[in-house]
Amino acid sequence: MRHEYALYVHKIPVGVLGASGYAGRELCALIQRHPRLTLAYATANSQRGETAQLPGGGSVTFVAADDVTLGHATLAFSALPHGASAEWVARAREDGVKVVDLSADLRIGNGSSDGIPYGLTEWNRQAVRGATLVANPGCYPTSALMAILPLLEQGLVADGATININAASGVTGAGLTARLDLLFGEVTENFRAYGVGNGHRHLKEMRAMVAAMPTDVDLIFTPHLLPVARGILSTITVPLRAPLSDPLAPFAARYANEPFIEVSPDLPELRHVQGRNVVRLTVRRLEGVRTPTIQVFSAIDNLMKGAAGQAMQNANLMLGLDETMGLPA
Amino acid sequence: MRHEYALYVHKIPVGVLGASGYAGRELCALIQRHPRLTLAYATANSQRGETAQLPGGGSVTFVAADDVTLGHATLAFSALPHGASAEWVARAREDGVKVVDLSADLRIGNGSSDGIPYGLTEWNRQAVRGATLVANPGCYPTSALMAILPLLEQGLVADGATININAASGVTGAGLTARLDLLFGEVTENFRAYGVGNGHRHLKEMRAMVAAMPTDVDLIFTPHLLPVARGILSTITVPLRAPLSDPLAPFAARYANEPFIEVSPDLPELRHVQGRNVVRLTVRRLEGVRTPTIQVFSAIDNLMKGAAGQAMQNANLMLGLDETMGLPA
Amino acid sequence: MRHEYALYVHKIPVGVLGASGYAGRELCALIQRHPRLTLAYATANSQRGETAQLPGGGSVTFVAADDVTLGHATLAFSALPHGASAEWVARAREDGVKVVDLSADLRIGNGSSDGIPYGLTEWNRQAVRGATLVANPGCYPTSALMAILPLLEQGLVADGATININAASGVTGAGLTARLDLLFGEVTENFRAYGVGNGHRHLKEMRAMVAAMPTDVDLIFTPHLLPVARGILSTITVPLRAPLSDPLAPFAARYANEPFIEVSPDLPELRHVQGRNVVRLTVRRLEGVRTPTIQVFSAIDNLMKGAAGQAMQNANLMLGLDETMGLPA
Amino acid sequence: MRHEYALYVHKIPVGVLGASGYAGRELCALIQRHPRLTLAYATANSQRGETAQLPGGGSVTFVAADDVTLGHATLAFSALPHGASAEWVARAREDGVKVVDLSADLRIGNGSSDGIPYGLTEWNRQAVRGATLVANPGCYPTSALMAILPLLEQGLVADGATININAASGVTGAGLTARLDLLFGEVTENFRAYGVGNGHRHLKEMRAMVAAMPTDVDLIFTPHLLPVARGILSTITVPLRAPLSDPLAPFAARYANEPFIEVSPDLPELRHVQGRNVVRLTVRRLEGVRTPTIQVFSAIDNLMKGAAGQAMQNANLMLGLDETMGLPA
Repeated sequence: MRHEYALYVHKIPVGVLGASGYAGRELCALIQRHPRLTLAYATANSQRGETAQLPGGGSVTFVAADDVTLGHATLAFSALPHGASAEWVARAREDGVKVVDLSADLRIGNGSSDGIPYGLTEWNRQAVRGATLVANPGCYPTSALMAILPLLEQGLVADGATININAASGVTGAGLTARLDLLFGEVTENFRAYGVGNGHRHLKEMRAMVAAMPTDVDLIFTPHLLPVARGILSTITVPLRAPLSDPLAPFAARYANEPFIEVSPDLPELRHVQGRNVVRLTVRRLEGVRTPTIQVFSAIDNLMKGAAGQAMQNANLMLGLDETMGLPA
Repeated sequence: MRHEYALYVHKIPVGVLGASGYAGRELCALIQRHPRLTLAYATANSQRGETAQLPGGGSVTFVAADDVTLGHATLAFSALPHGASAEWVARAREDGVKVVDLSADLRIGNGSSDGIPYGLTEWNRQAVRGATLVANPGCYPTSALMAILPLLEQGLVADGATININAASGVTGAGLTARLDLLFGEVTENFRAYGVGNGHRHLKEMRAMVAAMPTDVDLIFTPHLLPVARGILSTITVPLRAPLSDPLAPFAARYANEPFIEVSPDLPELRHVQGRNVVRLTVRRLEGVRTPTIQVFSAIDNLMKGAAGQAMQNANLMLGLDETMGLPA
Repeated sequence: MRHEYALYVHKIPVGVLGASGYAGRELCALIQRHPRLTLAYATANSQRGETAQLPGGGSVTFVAADDVTLGHATLAFSALPHGASAEWVARAREDGVKVVDLSADLRIGNGSSDGIPYGLTEWNRQAVRGATLVANPGCYPTSALMAILPLLEQGLVADGATININAASGVTGAGLTARLDLLFGEVTENFRAYGVGNGHRHLKEMRAMVAAMPTDVDLIFTPHLLPVARGILSTITVPLRAPLSDPLAPFAARYANEPFIEVSPDLPELRHVQGRNVVRLTVRRLEGVRTPTIQVFSAIDNLMKGAAGQAMQNANLMLGLDETMGLPA
Repeated sequence: MRHEYALYVHKIPVGVLGASGYAGRELCALIQRHPRLTLAYATANSQRGETAQLPGGGSVTFVAADDVTLGHATLAFSALPHGASAEWVARAREDGVKVVDLSADLRIGNGSSDGIPYGLTEWNRQAVRGATLVANPGCYPTSALMAILPLLEQGLVADGATININAASGVTGAGLTARLDLLFGEVTENFRAYGVGNGHRHLKEMRAMVAAMPTDVDLIFTPHLLPVARGILSTITVPLRAPLSDPLAPFAARYANEPFIEVSPDLPELRHVQGRNVVRLTVRRLEGVRTPTIQVFSAIDNLMKGAAGQAMQNANLMLGLDETMGLPA
């Protein structure tokens, strides 16, 4: 009976540009399981005509972007590489297509982001709801900002403090690209930092969001490459203005009604969040240091809440649908 | 005192052509630790001028092959890709350099192998000792032939039988090449067969060696890709002419004095052989089948006994050195 | 609207005995997402009162089996250990509860299976539909029998032939038990055979099913332990009565209308089936052997089609529900 | 000739108490390859009479501690569990045996360490050389202290600063113990922090060493569990008294003549150090923070420089041998 029912529901056509990578395939899979969306096109120039398996079953056949009428979709996700995305976003918009851009091209802190809502959904819901273009956040910033912003918003962080974000990500964060340093033989049984110092693009994104908060803080961000496929764990050290009797309280309050934020007393693990569009958070108070200090631990699936899942969350809002529709929480 | 002693020993210069891949680096590492060899050159055109870490410590700086006087080495290992190796082997020989070719170009069963000793050391020691050119066996054939040849040599296999070689290898067997299907994200938590049927180059090599044996048998060979970096395990089913009261005996007898063959009552595991130039074997008798049948289990490190280690074993013989010199057993 | 609809549907209470292991947790997760079932109880004596995370989100709190009124469930799954299950199955049946037993206690080939339907669903659907007790197949037998039975049923296998089943499983097949040889440090980068010869319990189960077929064949079964969490790949060599022009055809015909069997021209991989209640199959014809021979490749998720998923498939039938309900395909 | 030479060298008998764990086996392997040591006994009560494979080949048969005359060894390593070690250390010393204790029982910061040299070799060489008992450091402290102490010794750290040690370790750091949370199925594709806050025993050890330095600093230490077998990477953030023009210089100067400390401009990776008795270090200056700050990255093999290797380094000194003897660098 549920299937018959579904037959009479109008399905909204959506497209995926740059569908052959990890985030692109995840988007196709989410669309295929979404009760109200249908996949209008999935472009991948280098794999045109090829059929790929999708996570969780199903498959998709890629077409060349030039062979597609972009306007056949009501909304398009761009999972094109950084640098290549902006042009296609512009083309789609010219054809009247709403766009969620998963690339870094239009994100806050990257220069060309004026007026484009930054799709950290829980912090920008109203702007996203009315937008025709949304810049979807990076995976590391999603993990870190969800853990930092409640403290900054509530004025709990020491002024001038340095917030230290130590994060580790699975390899799919680097995309489906044939790099020698991402081969199994190079990653298994290994662990290393990378992009240390000022270099990682995601740091600008985080600093831009933090700059809008009342307290003036510095950020340190150190990403590491884990021998896992999916998931980011951020271990974030925050010097406080004053000790907190219940350090979970600021998070529990801020995220009380958020379906995709799990505030838990337990330390989050990657396996708690893999395949799910959630941020899982906890907080620990540190002893033996003279400055009152907490650590916030934040875990996400980099391809879900860190990319395709959050993009779908934003698309649901932009299309007037229930924000949670089609998303595994 | 040991170090002073070493100062007075003449070191033999050896070179490595195609040194930047997995087998090439392993060769460089073995040479650097070898008491009687010194590294004359390590070529890698695409990485000329770059310095790479070697397994177990140490490093090597690559040079372009065209910038090298091949004759400055007494012996050269070629770890160049299949197809590209034969030409450089010929050049080195013109300059009077002995060569161990780790590529498939000159191996038995591959057409151009006439008169070139096949360096399965334990089965071809005399030919290797006097050779100026040796074709080093493939990794799968080394693992399988060591397990099959004693049975065939001793006439224990049923005439017309089919020997079924089911093998699984770590990813370094595919070389240090930027292929999407070898990315960590594609290999972790995965397992798959490949090259099924008649297709794998190694099958020809095995059939050619088996054809020289008195019993006429068929071979089935099915390789699989493991989510591990190093190691091959072969599970080989052999129908016998008659039941064997002690199925280990043919192996214990044939390999009694071999320093690099471990015949054990226990099932071999990859971790028993990683980093070591050995083949580890055991045998199990199968019950409940009407044809008397055994299974032979054979484990090697594909980069050691399956490539660089066996190449060094052959080089030691060709240079008149102790066969075990510089090799971890 | 879909949610409102669900409110008015009667939910059937089902229980899980021995819920703290891998299969037990998977069952709890499947029940929680099932549109027509509700979890009546989840027992685990050693973890009574503890709350565990479930795969895919959600959680469950365990109770002691003695504190439960078994009859509060219409159907119970027993994921208790082999040996401990039979007693609780009997108790539940005395209380009028239908049972799917995931242990080996009542399976065909194990002595006490008289008249108890063997829940290899696609081969025993009618018996399962009317049953109040079903013995759920082992994971290896599910993978292998799905690949062998169509050939035997259609008389395609050579009489007296030996079918060679070479299989590799992820570690969750061994259960959530604190064994030293299952520690991460012992399994990572390793691969090994185990239970070789006649020893594995699953071989009896397979032989019993095969014995009911018209052709008289021998079975060889060699399990291996993979460094992956979930999944079984079986590589099965089958000598044929005569060559097959289209070796996929017997499978395509037999499984044409089966929602959980995927017959594909491509070699199956573990990642194609993880998290899904499917068997994925392909066939390759072997060249260069005098007996016409094929290899069948069969992949399943050992916790889904190999355990909890198939158990739910059977439960759906026993409860008069759609067989596919609540199952990810 | 080298082998004949070795025959005339006197070998010193050494024993291993608690030899069946990861560190114990590594010690046995190091002793078997050591040119001047011979294994007098290897005790493991629960595995008495059993033979275990050692890393890198070789094997050892365990005996019960009560069946051993401790005094048959000149020196004993205790790799017994924390709590159980102190008693056996005392017994061995009563029998005139020198002892390197790898447990935490007698380490600095743990209460009963008065006057017992802490075997962080590069920082305590003179005391170790003359000692009959040495407390071998923990793995995390070795990794972190090697990275911190040069900065503190040279007065470069801001007074009152908080040094943030974010570290990740492979599972062998937890020992060869049958814990559910260390099973392959629980660790693969996972990552998590543990022992957060004040709880980890290693923090006391680090604080005690740091307290002896001229600058007064706080330490934060957050360990994480990696899905790898061996290795620790520490990412350590240090606020400085003043900017450093060459942040590597303090390390290059302090460790210039140390054979087991590698100061490199490149970020260290676990694969650079696995199987080797080294600490590999680099430093990065952070931009965009108002306090001059550096990050030090430090990698070790937790079983080598973090346990058995450093223990052997200390034993060599205590026995009057060359410090590097028998150790892979």
